[in-house]
Formats: sequence, C-alpha cells, structure tokens
Amino acid sequence: MSNKNKTLTNVELKGFNFEKLVLESGKVIAPVTIAYETYGVLSEEKNNAVLVCHAFTGDSHAAGFYSGEDKPGWWDDMIGPGKAFDTDKYFVICSNVLGGCRGSTGPSSTNPATQKPYGLDFPVITIEDMVNAQKKLIDSLGIEKLLCVAGGSMGGMQALQWAALYPQSICSVIPVAAAMKHSPQQIAFNEVGRQAIMSDIAWNNGNYYQVEAKPERGLAVARMVGHITYMSDSSMEEKFSRNLKDKEYSFSFTADFEVEGYLRYRGGAFVKRFDANTYLYITKAMDYFDVSQDLPFIRNGFVKFLVISFASDWLYPSYQSENIVKELKMKGQPVTYCEVKSTYGHDAFLLEVEDQTRLVKHFLNNVYKEISHGK
Amino acid sequence: MSNKNKTLTNVELKGFNFEKLVLESGKVIAPVTIAYETYGVLSEEKNNAVLVCHAFTGDSHAAGFYSGEDKPGWWDDMIGPGKAFDTDKYFVICSNVLGGCRGSTGPSSTNPATQKPYGLDFPVITIEDMVNAQKKLIDSLGIEKLLCVAGGSMGGMQALQWAALYPQSICSVIPVAAAMKHSPQQIAFNEVGRQAIMSDIAWNNGNYYQVEAKPERGLAVARMVGHITYMSDSSMEEKFSRNLKDKEYSFSFTADFEVEGYLRYRGGAFVKRFDANTYLYITKAMDYFDVSQDLPFIRNGFVKFLVISFASDWLYPSYQSENIVKELKMKGQPVTYCEVKSTYGHDAFLLEVEDQTRLVKHFLNNVYKEISHGK
Repeated sequence: MSNKNKTLTNVELKGFNFEKLVLESGKVIAPVTIAYETYGVLSEEKNNAVLVCHAFTGDSHAAGFYSGEDKPGWWDDMIGPGKAFDTDKYFVICSNVLGGCRGSTGPSSTNPATQKPYGLDFPVITIEDMVNAQKKLIDSLGIEKLLCVAGGSMGGMQALQWAALYPQSICSVIPVAAAMKHSPQQIAFNEVGRQAIMSDIAWNNGNYYQVEAKPERGLAVARMVGHITYMSDSSMEEKFSRNLKDKEYSFSFTADFEVEGYLRYRGGAFVKRFDANTYLYITKAMDYFDVSQDLPFIRNGFVKFLVISFASDWLYPSYQSENIVKELKMKGQPVTYCEVKSTYGHDAFLLEVEDQTRLVKHFLNNVYKEISHGK
Repeated sequence: MSNKNKTLTNVELKGFNFEKLVLESGKVIAPVTIAYETYGVLSEEKNNAVLVCHAFTGDSHAAGFYSGEDKPGWWDDMIGPGKAFDTDKYFVICSNVLGGCRGSTGPSSTNPATQKPYGLDFPVITIEDMVNAQKKLIDSLGIEKLLCVAGGSMGGMQALQWAALYPQSICSVIPVAAAMKHSPQQIAFNEVGRQAIMSDIAWNNGNYYQVEAKPERGLAVARMVGHITYMSDSSMEEKFSRNLKDKEYSFSFTADFEVEGYLRYRGGAFVKRFDANTYLYITKAMDYFDVSQDLPFIRNGFVKFLVISFASDWLYPSYQSENIVKELKMKGQPVTYCEVKSTYGHDAFLLEVEDQTRLVKHFLNNVYKEISHGK
C-alpha cells in the first residue's frame, strides 16, 4: 500500500534529553532521553503540530524511510505528503515511550547509580508518566498547543491521557481502537505474557543484559499470544484456514499448520527487536491505565474527539470506544465516532488505511480551520 | 449446585486392559490400559448405556464421590439419580482418553520397550485413536449399541467422531460446545500452550519423569492462556472487574489485580494434577481433528443429534455448532439444536446445568422410548 514516491525519505531519529522526571509512583528517573522523529514543517504560529503516539511494541519511527533503509515507519500509510496526517500541512511528531527499548530511557538503559543496565531497578511507570515525558518534549519544541494527539491501541490510551492531563494544551484527540481502562480480559492477556517471560529461566529476575542467554523463548511465547489477540477469528480463517505446511500430518510436534509456522516465525522475529523487560513495564503501564474517572471531567470544553473502532477487534472491542463516546457526550464534549467495518481484528488500525484516512483528514482539516479562524 | 443426597457415592475407578491399538498414524501402542468409571446399572438388554466423553483436561471421574473424598466428578451436576443423565435409568460410562495422565496409557506410562516412561517416544494420537480405544472398552462390556455418546468441548469432538466412525453402534450423539474441526484460532491457542511447555528448560524434550525438575512453569503459562479462553469478556468483568488484591497499585510485578492472582493460582493448581506431555499430545489430537468430510456422510440414517452451544463461548463459537447442524441437515439427518444463553463463555458447558438438563433429559428420553418401542 505504501507508495515510496509519496513517502518521506532521509528521516532522522533524534534524541531529547532532560534532567529528570517525577513519576506517578513518586519515584524519579534521572536523566531521561526521549527518542523522537518529526515529519513536515512546524508553522511560524506553531499551531500545526500533531503528536502521534505509538502502540505497545511500536517506536518513534512512524513514517518515511531512514537513509539507506527499505522499511518504512509503522504508520507510513497514514503519515506523509497528502496522506491522512498530511505532512505538507502538519508538523507530525512521534516519540518512543518512556520505558521503551528503541532509544528512550527504559529498563535496558544505563542506571547512573550503578553504571549498569537498570533491569528491574527501573521504576514501574504509567501511561501518565509516558505522557508527562512527551509533554516535556513538546514544550522543548516551543509548542504551546498541539493541534491533535492521535494513536491506535496504547497510542490511543496516551491520547486519552493527554486529554485528561493537559486539555489546555491540545485542540483535539483521535483515540483509535483504544479504551479508557483495561478490562480484566485485557489485563489477563498481558499477565500471561509477563508470566511467560518471567518463567523463562534466562530472564533471571531481569538481569540478562550482560550475559549471553536472553529470555527469548518466554518473550516469543508472549508475542505469540499477542498475535492471536491482534487478529480475528475470521482474519485467521482467511489467512491460514487449516492449510498445512506440508501435504500430510507429521504426527510429531513440528509446525504442521501454516498458522503454527506463522506464530513461531513472528515470535522469533520479535525477540530480535524487543526487550523482555520493556515488555513487562509497558504491559503493566497499560493495565494500570484508567482515565474513566478523569476523562468525563475535562476542564476545557474545547477538546474535540474523533473516536474510531473496528468491528472485528475483540482485544479492544467497539463497546470500549462506545463507552468513551458515551462518557464524553454525557458531559457535553464534542465527539465524532465511527466503527469501521473490518475483518482484520485489532490489527485493523494499521491496515484499514482508506476509511481512517477519510475520517482523520476531514476531522483534522476542520479542527485546523477552526483554530486558524479563531485567531 | 451439587446435592450430595442425590449424588453417587463409593464410585470406583476401574481399568480395562487390552493387547494393542493400531493408530491412525500406522504406529502401534501395546499394551493399552483405559481407566474408566460407570454409574447406574446396565439393563439386561444392554440398551441403556451412555458414553460420556471428557474435555481436554478432564478424566474418567465424571460423577459421584470416591470413597472418603469430598470432590465430586467434573459433570456431577449432570450425571446421577434423577439428573440429566439419570443413573436410575441409564448406565453411564466415562473413560480417561488415550494419551491421558489419569490412568489411561499416555506419555507418562511405562514404555515396555525401555521400561521407562514413554516421554516423546509415545506416538502422536488422534481423536479417532481415542474413540477406537473407547470402542474396545464398550465391546468388552458387551454393549453392541450405545444409547448415546455425549460430551462437551473435546468430549463433543469425540462424540462426533463416534458418529463418523461407528454410526451403527450408536443411537444418538450430544456434542456440546464443540466443532467439526479446529479453526486456525483454536489451533493457534493450542500451539501457544505447546510452545510455553516446550520453551521450559525443564521440559527437556519430554524427558522429565525421572528427574525432580518438571516443566511446571511452562505448563502453568499454558493453563493460564487456556483459562482466559474458557471464560468470556463479560464473565471476567462480572467475576473480577478491575478489583485489586490490595488497596493500591503495588508499582511492582506482583499480582495487583484479582484476575492476575486468579490466573496464577489456577496455573499453579493445574500443574499438580496434569502432565505436560499429555498437554502436548491431546492438544495435537484436537488440532488434527476434522470430521467435516466424514460427518455429513454417515451411512446409517438413524443417528439422532442434539447439538448445544453457548452464546458467549468464543473459543468454540456457536457458528461452529451451527455448521455441524447445517451439514447434517443438508444430508437429512435428524438434528435438534439449541444455543443456550449464557455469559460464562466456554465454561458454560460445566456451569449451565438447568438448561442442559432439560435439553438432555427430554432428548434421551425420546431416543430411549423409540428404541424400546422399536424392539
């Protein structure tokens, strides 16, 4: 779907450093680095900035190509010249979350107290902490008010947290396939992933950075569970059905079915790019997340919401988006809601480009028009 | 729900031994023991026998109490005097499946060739193999024709396999919360469980019986995934919501939420009663299972079906039961179908006693009446 002609090139990974961050738990991380990228140009009035927040295992590379690389950013279909987040018009920012393993300070970073990787000495963080780190980045760029904060899945949770924490600093929010709080089923799936990692003897209570053996098997199992929840029953049927890798049953424990081979492959690929401790920290942050008491009480009445969900998404089911809409409507907040028809399950937020493009484009256009007129 | 007054006491575990079983793979297991229990009395005409098949982690202890024990069998609410499977009227048989770890020959049994536990030298088995072993047991009891074969989940798959293999030997079938074949999503969840076990270093390629360390952590993770799939989003919300074990977030990786504590507890309890290799073998048998080509072509037109599914069951969704019904109806087979309203998810087949009792009781009564008249 990605068209290289319409895609940004020579994208650069940047780093923003600041002295310290006081966390929701009361603990402090110092110093902090936040990895980020920007696309497009910040207007003179600094009123065209859009913060895009990544999902659980994403990173700051949301769009375009790094010099000499072939793989575009994770939301490249949505961010670029003429796309939903039109970089001819808007200045788009994406940062790796606090606790991440793709350039931002996290459990694999060096603990200044010991000069060794933090491991489990890294304090437990929350979505609020992630957003507070992003706020410092946005402040450092001289942006007083973001045109929009948008994101899918955990990215949508960050967007909602922005609305709850900093309503005066944003014009609009686009939470996609997200929730105000994790349900017990969502917590349960995360807990299984954590247990898979912590059960791996190589996890070694989080101290594996300086030895060769990594908790790769546990992390791969965690990822396999994740992949099932990202797809839908019907998208798995469409993609794999009961297709065999070979002609006949092996009558052994090798991967007979294509779906087994796929899960093993995806599990194996994941461990090469993701840190097991970050898996623990970020899932915990998601499970702690709960803005159901804060969101309906935004002090500033002028945050506009575009809420998007997907019909076959059973990990972040539409009813969770509808609950967001209901709570906001009850308090008179302006909300637009759309459930996109899709068979892709939760993955739809990465795959259903056409519908999302239309929805986001018009929404952003209207918000931008309004604030430009309002000046 | 279980009423001890109406429950069988002094239930005995029996063993049926036979020389050998030729498997679907062409391999042979010899000798074979099948553990089983019976409830009620076999009529002189031997026409009142009902075979109840257990689900994945069940066993032959379907009803009543062992002498001196307090925990009734797994379907005690359904089997006993006056219950759905009325032991005042019917002779009910339940056996532990081939490959099991509760008395029947399986990977933890002694391999006569080595005098050590089979481990992975145990041949891969199928649902057809399980049913062929049951057939030998039924033959040994002198029963030419079963009044009914019934079961939930994998028990229902065995019941369907009976219909496909031995239509002349059964009058009726009751598959509950079952499927004609596993979907890729069902295979995927099983594969995750297998990978969790095989990733545990203590699994040791299946050779752990004679050492102290068992693959308990991997098996517990597998079970935790299972438990999520047995419940529904709404039954988890009802049971746990976001309730905390303590008053506040721990900001650590201990179990903060009740749902986490529950999963850890259930995982830990399971490893005490279940063998990790049996987990591998039985899940593989389920994944291989596919009677979608055989079932519609039953040669004997007089097998009656009662198909039951549950509205909130997303592991064995109602559409899979509806597919069974459709295929049978297309071939003119007599089928009764009921989707029971329930929020319990897949667990409903163990919990929704009242509706199932009514459905099963009338159905069995009619089948029994008909064959008694037919004589």
